[in-house]
Amino acid sequence: MSGGLDSAVTLYYAKNAGYKCLCLGFDYGQRHLRELECAKELCRRAKAEFQLIKFAMPWKGSALLDKKIGVTSHLPAGRQARSQVTSKIPNTYVSARNIIFLSFALSCAETVKAEKIFIGAHSQDYSGYPDCRPEFYRSFAKVVKSGTKAGVENKPVAVETPLLYKFKSDIIKMGIRLRVPFELTWSCYKGGKRPCNECDSCAYRKKGFKEAGIADPAI
Amino acid sequence: MSGGLDSAVTLYYAKNAGYKCLCLGFDYGQRHLRELECAKELCRRAKAEFQLIKFAMPWKGSALLDKKIGVTSHLPAGRQARSQVTSKIPNTYVSARNIIFLSFALSCAETVKAEKIFIGAHSQDYSGYPDCRPEFYRSFAKVVKSGTKAGVENKPVAVETPLLYKFKSDIIKMGIRLRVPFELTWSCYKGGKRPCNECDSCAYRKKGFKEAGIADPAI
Repeated sequence: MSGGLDSAVTLYYAKNAGYKCLCLGFDYGQRHLRELECAKELCRRAKAEFQLIKFAMPWKGSALLDKKIGVTSHLPAGRQARSQVTSKIPNTYVSARNIIFLSFALSCAETVKAEKIFIGAHSQDYSGYPDCRPEFYRSFAKVVKSGTKAGVENKPVAVETPLLYKFKSDIIKMGIRLRVPFELTWSCYKGGKRPCNECDSCAYRKKGFKEAGIADPAI
Repeated sequence: MSGGLDSAVTLYYAKNAGYKCLCLGFDYGQRHLRELECAKELCRRAKAEFQLIKFAMPWKGSALLDKKIGVTSHLPAGRQARSQVTSKIPNTYVSARNIIFLSFALSCAETVKAEKIFIGAHSQDYSGYPDCRPEFYRSFAKVVKSGTKAGVENKPVAVETPLLYKFKSDIIKMGIRLRVPFELTWSCYKGGKRPCNECDSCAYRKKGFKEAGIADPAI
């Protein structure tokens, strides 16, 4: 639960499907720590439990972790699928971030006997992070199967990615239907008082609301 | 780098193979935190860098995390391969522990441009944890390939498991050849002043030294 609009829509999707939700938020030293305040508030509003996991990634190497590295933007033109990644991965990439998040979620889910993990990753108009793509989620399912007690007992925790093939505008429309309080979400990578309107995350959000024909209530 | 004998042998194995090593130690609230002092000392002795990663796993659910749960022993009789797990997994199982550790190691390795991750998991006379088995490491390699920038660029970080098919006695003999200072290692799950000599970890260690025909210098 990042506090951004994808995780907010995912929470409301799971809630709407009848699940009792326990949300994990991660403080990994990101410059936009502000998002976690939004995550907590979103959970409070959705009556979902929120648990904060805090750790440092002392190796930094990402613009999200190291303020000496400027956040660059690389939004590709047009509404195109981004199946090719590699050289286009921007400097906000935090190596293995979703792998770490999912591993914690898996440990929690197996321990509290949760049926599913929901994650709001998507791979259409996104920043090109490898751990947001279907290939990655297919591999991770095999790790769940082979690397946990529930997995070897043929009751693996399922990882559900309801947004995986959706465009940002579709996610926004879905959120509107689910009555997601978008005014509480935070997307900007820079973590200032107001969204910067320049970083990839802001740009995708802006494009999404524009394409959905809806005004962004957070602006 | 847990400070136990498997990770000590793995460190010396990597060092002996010519690698410059950066070791990650994890404080995840384990009752045998004492092992981390051993890990640090082992790294100092081996002239390897040591980095501590600290986080809480508030869902507990394991005897290693929750002092209210007693550490039970379930050492199987004889020198048998443990290809069947499931019901035999003891209550020291921490869900997804190696998955979490490897995810951090992967993030670190990709960021500092390390070639390999070494982990001292083994699946012969061990506690039956699913994330110590070859199947799990094969799946994790696919996660590395699909979920990281280096992976999609066809330069995935390799995960090497030099002890995977070895018995504890073989690991000890390997450590003797590599001049591992076994007197600095700590295996006991209970984390008292002296090893308890009862938990699985103590029992496997004792059995290993006995089968190797070597006296345990830590006792």
